Amino acid sequence: MNYRLVVGQLGLLFTLLGVIMIATAGLFALAEVFEIRRDTDQTGLLALAATGGVGTILGYLGWFSARNTPGYIGRREALLLVAGSWLLGAALAATPYLVWAHISSDTPDHPFRSPVNAYFEAMSGLTTTGATVLPQIETLPSGILLWRALTHWLGGLGIVVLFVAVLPGLGVGGKRIFNVEAPGPSPEGLQPHIRETARWLWYIYLGLSVAMATALWVATPLDLFDSVCHTFATLATGGFSTKNASVGAYAHTVSVDIIVIPFMILAGMNFNLFYKLVRGRVKEVLRDTELRLYLALLSFGALLVTLAVWYSDNSIVMTTGEHVESTLGASARQAVFTTVSVQSTTGFCTSDFNLWPFLAKAVLVMLMFVGGCAGSTAGGIKVIRVWAACKILLAEVEHVFRPKVVRPVRFGKSAMDPELKLGTLAFILGVIMLFVLGSGSVMLFEQLNPDSDCSYTTAATSAIATLCTIGPGLEAVGAVANYGWFSAPSKIVLTLLMLLGRLEIFAIVVLFSHRFWRHD
Amino acid sequence: MNYRLVVGQLGLLFTLLGVIMIATAGLFALAEVFEIRRDTDQTGLLALAATGGVGTILGYLGWFSARNTPGYIGRREALLLVAGSWLLGAALAATPYLVWAHISSDTPDHPFRSPVNAYFEAMSGLTTTGATVLPQIETLPSGILLWRALTHWLGGLGIVVLFVAVLPGLGVGGKRIFNVEAPGPSPEGLQPHIRETARWLWYIYLGLSVAMATALWVATPLDLFDSVCHTFATLATGGFSTKNASVGAYAHTVSVDIIVIPFMILAGMNFNLFYKLVRGRVKEVLRDTELRLYLALLSFGALLVTLAVWYSDNSIVMTTGEHVESTLGASARQAVFTTVSVQSTTGFCTSDFNLWPFLAKAVLVMLMFVGGCAGSTAGGIKVIRVWAACKILLAEVEHVFRPKVVRPVRFGKSAMDPELKLGTLAFILGVIMLFVLGSGSVMLFEQLNPDSDCSYTTAATSAIATLCTIGPGLEAVGAVANYGWFSAPSKIVLTLLMLLGRLEIFAIVVLFSHRFWRHD
Repeated sequence: MNYRLVVGQLGLLFTLLGVIMIATAGLFALAEVFEIRRDTDQTGLLALAATGGVGTILGYLGWFSARNTPGYIGRREALLLVAGSWLLGAALAATPYLVWAHISSDTPDHPFRSPVNAYFEAMSGLTTTGATVLPQIETLPSGILLWRALTHWLGGLGIVVLFVAVLPGLGVGGKRIFNVEAPGPSPEGLQPHIRETARWLWYIYLGLSVAMATALWVATPLDLFDSVCHTFATLATGGFSTKNASVGAYAHTVSVDIIVIPFMILAGMNFNLFYKLVRGRVKEVLRDTELRLYLALLSFGALLVTLAVWYSDNSIVMTTGEHVESTLGASARQAVFTTVSVQSTTGFCTSDFNLWPFLAKAVLVMLMFVGGCAGSTAGGIKVIRVWAACKILLAEVEHVFRPKVVRPVRFGKSAMDPELKLGTLAFILGVIMLFVLGSGSVMLFEQLNPDSDCSYTTAATSAIATLCTIGPGLEAVGAVANYGWFSAPSKIVLTLLMLLGRLEIFAIVVLFSHRFWRHD
Repeated sequence: MNYRLVVGQLGLLFTLLGVIMIATAGLFALAEVFEIRRDTDQTGLLALAATGGVGTILGYLGWFSARNTPGYIGRREALLLVAGSWLLGAALAATPYLVWAHISSDTPDHPFRSPVNAYFEAMSGLTTTGATVLPQIETLPSGILLWRALTHWLGGLGIVVLFVAVLPGLGVGGKRIFNVEAPGPSPEGLQPHIRETARWLWYIYLGLSVAMATALWVATPLDLFDSVCHTFATLATGGFSTKNASVGAYAHTVSVDIIVIPFMILAGMNFNLFYKLVRGRVKEVLRDTELRLYLALLSFGALLVTLAVWYSDNSIVMTTGEHVESTLGASARQAVFTTVSVQSTTGFCTSDFNLWPFLAKAVLVMLMFVGGCAGSTAGGIKVIRVWAACKILLAEVEHVFRPKVVRPVRFGKSAMDPELKLGTLAFILGVIMLFVLGSGSVMLFEQLNPDSDCSYTTAATSAIATLCTIGPGLEAVGAVANYGWFSAPSKIVLTLLMLLGRLEIFAIVVLFSHRFWRHD
């Protein structure tokens, strides 16, 4: 293992994050100068600028210490780098929260005074989960609010680059799962093709962001700041909002839903498809199995949820607390928004779906497990893996009475090899195991805490909502609740689940294998 | 598909069951003649004798119609025969319940007047589940009680013969999973080696039964009838008791626990090991991986449950309603009994474990999923499969950072081939899918029923307790509850889960494949 190379790359990451923090603070300072400021609290900007400065220096030192290090980034170095980027990146991203809460005189009891809370929020941002420990979001200074949204956007970009450009090149997860045309690792290391692929991913991500932010700013009552923050949270399928009531704060403006819903769907699509679209290969995109299944699941799920909500006599309770009659139209609007938000693993909320009938909740929880498409910013098992697993199970059934018939499980044009089949089922079992272990641990920790009254549903959905990077779950972690009340051990477990889910388990689990660290 | 051959074999089964019913009724009639009778209610004997008569005639007709049919039992015929045996066998086994409830004048509102209830109870018996719809068991006439216990014993024998003698010969499930030395299908069909293997299985099963019944009769206050009934339920890992309080009715007699616990453990062991023991291959038995893991899991599980129960301040509530102080001794006794009862999938109860702390319940539910050993009368995923899956997942982790290293997953001396690995993971995923579908359907059906107040925990544990053939679950299907209150659709779902779990899914799922029925 070439640790110095890894340190050098982590240094680059710290420098980048530091510079972005300083730039964010600078932007707000400029707004101050030109008197287009939003609030007078300077502590947020101070915290950002200070952390940014320290981060940049630390990063530069790390990078400098590793300059001219011979060798290239191999498989194990890349895995360590990926895990380290999120683990340490979250620590740096959490520092502004922590610093702000300690220097601001208005916040003697603010949740961010606890490092566990600040790290939870930062990891939730970078993993594009969107689970928050904050009961009050609107009291945050706007610098901190923007940084919070920005962690989503940076994490989302990181994950797309990682899964579309880096990991398939390493052979992790299988190129075919991600439907990627990336070449294998070249003798000189991964840089050449990663740079090329990363470049167009960056263009697409930026293009979609500009398009959405403009649309929100122009066509809805949202100001530029809220438009940008919600854009960051949407394209990363994150879910942090600048409002306590999430997107439900704009429930009276249908234009917000009309813009947010399609962009949530887009963010859950494989980013390779955008690349193909740009290249004019429209037919290929329309024929994409995973895309079709994703849209079919979204439609079918939204239909079932609509019917369940409509059929129930209860009125719909919005995240603002407002009650709305469950007419077919209102049910459909809330059902479509919530289904898309949940399956794309964004986690924006407009209504309190915890109060919906069992069928609606069951469909939503199922879709939480499924998640979006591979190669997107969405979390979850991924549509293509669920599809592959269904086909493998069906083939196994036929195998029982026709052991000699080999019916290939096809993925587009090519058949899955046994390796990939096994890997797919192993991944799904891994998700289920982590879900069980996670909810069990949370339940245990909360039982040890006499002040806590954590139900099975709360524990289970907090685990799935973090593991699949959704954000809100049911009951005490529902649409109108938050994660602040959990005990510190539970929060640590949930933070780990976010990371495991985001990096598709293996990049983290390998760290616990003694063979991974063995010198050879 | 050679349907006539299948009909002929089903005819033999009906004849066998019919003759056993008549013999049971005859036994009680003799007891009557010699005035050693237990109760004066003759309706139970009448119901048994009548059903037995009809069953024998029907069976003979079926067998007669298929005599001289050319051909032999192939793979598909065997699978259909297995599924048909349990589906139709349960119908015949349910008939005495139904007939008795309708002809007995004492039982105007008895649950057995509903065919769904009677079928549920019969399926629960034959699949060795032990879930009951009856709130009052002690009011049943003794003929019906004995028949109820006998369904366990017959089902248990059937399942051992099936999984140790028949299916491995067919190649279903893999010989290595069952650790069987059975030869493959011979050109003349399966009969020769099935007969041979079935014969010694029968001797072992009978020997264990005689040993246990004698021990209970001699060393405990149980009379011959209760000894025999509890023996049937134990060796089949069934769980039907003749007492409302299950084995908890004998809580003041520690000798009952001392006999029942070891026999539950034995019943959860691979029956091949007894065969090896008989042949003097003791070392091989002691070195058996699955046996060691099974005993280790039981010990570790019992330890955790003991500590959890002991640590909690609550007293232990027995199934009789009695409260016992949770001293270390009392906690250990209840924890060991319950852990063994749950992991061996017997489902006898002595105390109400639903009232135990979360950790204890979590361990018990985990062990419900694991179940006993392959080739035993126990249900569940089976220890060896769980072990194999863990090893496969670990190998997958290493595969991520060392894709070229192939580390074989070993089962004793031989490595698992990719086929078997895939089959193992597919089976576990299948169990999880059925568990989710089953609990979801039960929850949905109970939501449609305004009188029902079914919690998630109740729905989930009813599904797992039937799918893994345990019997009791938690909350409204707990140790002191029963399944009688479920709506008919839920009961049908749970009946199907018992069958799916008992026949290890595939033998039933193939029936839903159109290719299975296709003429060729």
